[in-house]
Amino acid sequence: MTRHALVAGFEKGLVCGQGLIAQGRGEAFDYLLGEETNDFAKDASEAAAAMLLLARSPVISVNGNMAALCAREIVLLAGEVGAKIEVNLFYRTDERVERVRKALMEAGAKRVMGGGRGEVRIPELFSERRRASRNGIYSADVVLLALEDGDRTKALARMGKKVVAVDLNPLSVTSQTATVTIVDEITRAVPGIRFAAAGLKRAKRKALREKVRAFDNRKTLSRALKRIGARMRELSGELGRG
Amino acid sequence: MTRHALVAGFEKGLVCGQGLIAQGRGEAFDYLLGEETNDFAKDASEAAAAMLLLARSPVISVNGNMAALCAREIVLLAGEVGAKIEVNLFYRTDERVERVRKALMEAGAKRVMGGGRGEVRIPELFSERRRASRNGIYSADVVLLALEDGDRTKALARMGKKVVAVDLNPLSVTSQTATVTIVDEITRAVPGIRFAAAGLKRAKRKALREKVRAFDNRKTLSRALKRIGARMRELSGELGRG
Repeated sequence: MTRHALVAGFEKGLVCGQGLIAQGRGEAFDYLLGEETNDFAKDASEAAAAMLLLARSPVISVNGNMAALCAREIVLLAGEVGAKIEVNLFYRTDERVERVRKALMEAGAKRVMGGGRGEVRIPELFSERRRASRNGIYSADVVLLALEDGDRTKALARMGKKVVAVDLNPLSVTSQTATVTIVDEITRAVPGIRFAAAGLKRAKRKALREKVRAFDNRKTLSRALKRIGARMRELSGELGRG
Repeated sequence: MTRHALVAGFEKGLVCGQGLIAQGRGEAFDYLLGEETNDFAKDASEAAAAMLLLARSPVISVNGNMAALCAREIVLLAGEVGAKIEVNLFYRTDERVERVRKALMEAGAKRVMGGGRGEVRIPELFSERRRASRNGIYSADVVLLALEDGDRTKALARMGKKVVAVDLNPLSVTSQTATVTIVDEITRAVPGIRFAAAGLKRAKRKALREKVRAFDNRKTLSRALKRIGARMRELSGELGRG
């Protein structure tokens, strides 16, 4: 299902070739994680929801894969936590920015940032990759991103932003740099954060801060790796018995 | 490097979108296997070389990814073991068959089968996927394939053929169906089989048969899974110390 949505997105020009390769890498990790939302991902989604609800200016950074796979869910999440939406492509062309924006507008977004006017440069990044909207990612305090390049995640972290990352590889630079990493497939993770946010909406800010403080990303990533290791042993056993 | 060669192959029309996704899946497993040729892959290459040298009519089945990544190495291996080369695409169009054939001819192949005349149907397979050359894969006793669909591998096995598979996922249907599975990246595996074949060229047929008999594919796959599990634990420990 997901793969077909992505190939359709590719044919529509939303997704680039490298995006298809990235999808394949994700699929392999998802398979090793049991193709389900694990406990550590649920815990991370709770912390992410709390962080987004506490944010002064949260932004959801959207690339082609995300738009192809879950544009509607992104719009719903943005509404739930009061986040802006910004198109942010690694292999950037103006045409593709426009297509991703259009997909988000068709999914119900009222406003989509990124591209054109109002763009400034993220420090210590080069080429087109450093562009960000002044009133969007550039001035955000919390950025939610997925399937993101490690250098960009690091650049955002160096600017003092809190980063919520959705990434299926617990060992990626993005996973290890983010403040909160949700090791889960994007189409499960985005509604997962939204449900968590809906549940926390009436919580006191103090309780939300406590939730964020109690979260340990390093431990979360370690739990994800242990899950992969355990599944390998389990599958290896099945092979032995087969 | 490999990824760029593949994206170039994609732009030339050798590789399809699903081929890029398959590449990504492979990359993730390669990473978990340490991005090196492991002992179990070396052992499997030895058995594969012996099997190809013993074969009456060995055929190397080539898809778009293989042609984009290692056309020259395929031609050299075919020469070393006296194998035919056949283009065999999962997402088949006549145009892409022609492009893959051309890439192999440019890499030095004298003859490339597949497509057009002389094709018959593999039993129990449907649509275009069942086509195979009568004098190629259809009548082969040993088929070397890589990155292959599980149903096709099973269909070849049901026809009584011995299958040598190159596949980075030790749990895939192809890996588990093949007679010999080399769990390694294709650009390392193909020359690996060739070097093994060169080393075995003067061996007696009895010694080659003994090598094949001694090989246990299930044990090989189990070793690959154990390697992934061990690497996960190793990387997980690094994370803990970080």
